[in-house]
Amino acid sequence: MANNAEVILLDFWPSPFGMRIRIALAEKGIKYEYREEDLKNKSDLLLQMNPVHKKIPVLIHNGKPVAESLVAVQYINEVWKDKAPLLPSDPYQRAQANFWADFVDKKIFELGRKTWATKGEEQEAAKQGFIESLKLLEGELGEKPFFGGENLGYVDVALMPFYSWFYTYEVCGNFSIEAECPKLIEWAKRCLAKESVFNSLPDHKKVYGFMLELKKRFGIE
Amino acid sequence: MANNAEVILLDFWPSPFGMRIRIALAEKGIKYEYREEDLKNKSDLLLQMNPVHKKIPVLIHNGKPVAESLVAVQYINEVWKDKAPLLPSDPYQRAQANFWADFVDKKIFELGRKTWATKGEEQEAAKQGFIESLKLLEGELGEKPFFGGENLGYVDVALMPFYSWFYTYEVCGNFSIEAECPKLIEWAKRCLAKESVFNSLPDHKKVYGFMLELKKRFGIE
Repeated sequence: MANNAEVILLDFWPSPFGMRIRIALAEKGIKYEYREEDLKNKSDLLLQMNPVHKKIPVLIHNGKPVAESLVAVQYINEVWKDKAPLLPSDPYQRAQANFWADFVDKKIFELGRKTWATKGEEQEAAKQGFIESLKLLEGELGEKPFFGGENLGYVDVALMPFYSWFYTYEVCGNFSIEAECPKLIEWAKRCLAKESVFNSLPDHKKVYGFMLELKKRFGIE
Repeated sequence: MANNAEVILLDFWPSPFGMRIRIALAEKGIKYEYREEDLKNKSDLLLQMNPVHKKIPVLIHNGKPVAESLVAVQYINEVWKDKAPLLPSDPYQRAQANFWADFVDKKIFELGRKTWATKGEEQEAAKQGFIESLKLLEGELGEKPFFGGENLGYVDVALMPFYSWFYTYEVCGNFSIEAECPKLIEWAKRCLAKESVFNSLPDHKKVYGFMLELKKRFGIE
């Protein structure tokens, strides 16, 4: 199968959702064309490839689009199945991985965003909810090196991109994630030691600078 | 494999998420024990089986819990794979089904809820968004009898439960879904003609009565 024929990723560098697809493609060793989108002036290709949500990231494989990051990661895992399986074959273990990736989607992005985009009580509640969610994830990790077991898996790919935003959350929210969840930070460092992850994540200070721009653009003090 | 050994569903009758699992189990012909939860006084079993979200529905298969409705539907489809496949085997078609099921999750429940739980501008915006979302789904359905093609599939299972709430949305929001999306209503009637669906959905007037109770309980006028 000429699976490798043409792979394009429409993305925006600080997007944790885009990073998920970058990590998955890197884990599978897929060469692809990375196209940075200007979200203030979206390309015709983006609007055409994701007419429903009009959002990055979109994976385009041989001209056919796959939108929504977890959907795309699953697709990548199924098409390029011979290398670095991201999901276990056992249905129950797959269900658990799906459950936790969904948990990351429902909790981490929005609570993390509120640590820098809100103030006062709302910010405090977000910080608490964020830490609580990370502690639940830490419990799920347990003593395993990765959520996927001995190797990077689906939940690792879903969660790890947010690590590039941890510095921003911590500085804006005035808290230490490492003090609350030391084992999760050890896990993040193990992930970061992998080339597939390291090369897919931006520098945390660059993300911080981007957040400052966002605040200015949306008039958040 | 003794897949049928013991299946329990912790559920609450007006839950569209619970209905998804009921439909999937019925499609597969799985006998199970239905346990109605009192959400004001959740059972120890529910809290123990879904400690993260503490929500119904939870599927318990041989003592092991699967929470989150779409995760459970996928699990059911993978464990009982010999009958009534809900997802196509082609990775691209699977990705499309995952995309649209995710779309239903992101749009339909919350916009639908706002058609009865809000008033004025917020309600108007919700109605518009709701209809817009249904039209996108209608477009995806196209001329196929079901989202899954000739047979009921994953997106049908994800969306159809909300049909039991359409009457409530329409009466409270003062609009007609059939006038806006006639083909989608034809689809819903095709689904309802299937025993697996018909027996899994409550009567729409009973749902309406439940909504009135909810409004009273939460002080919504």
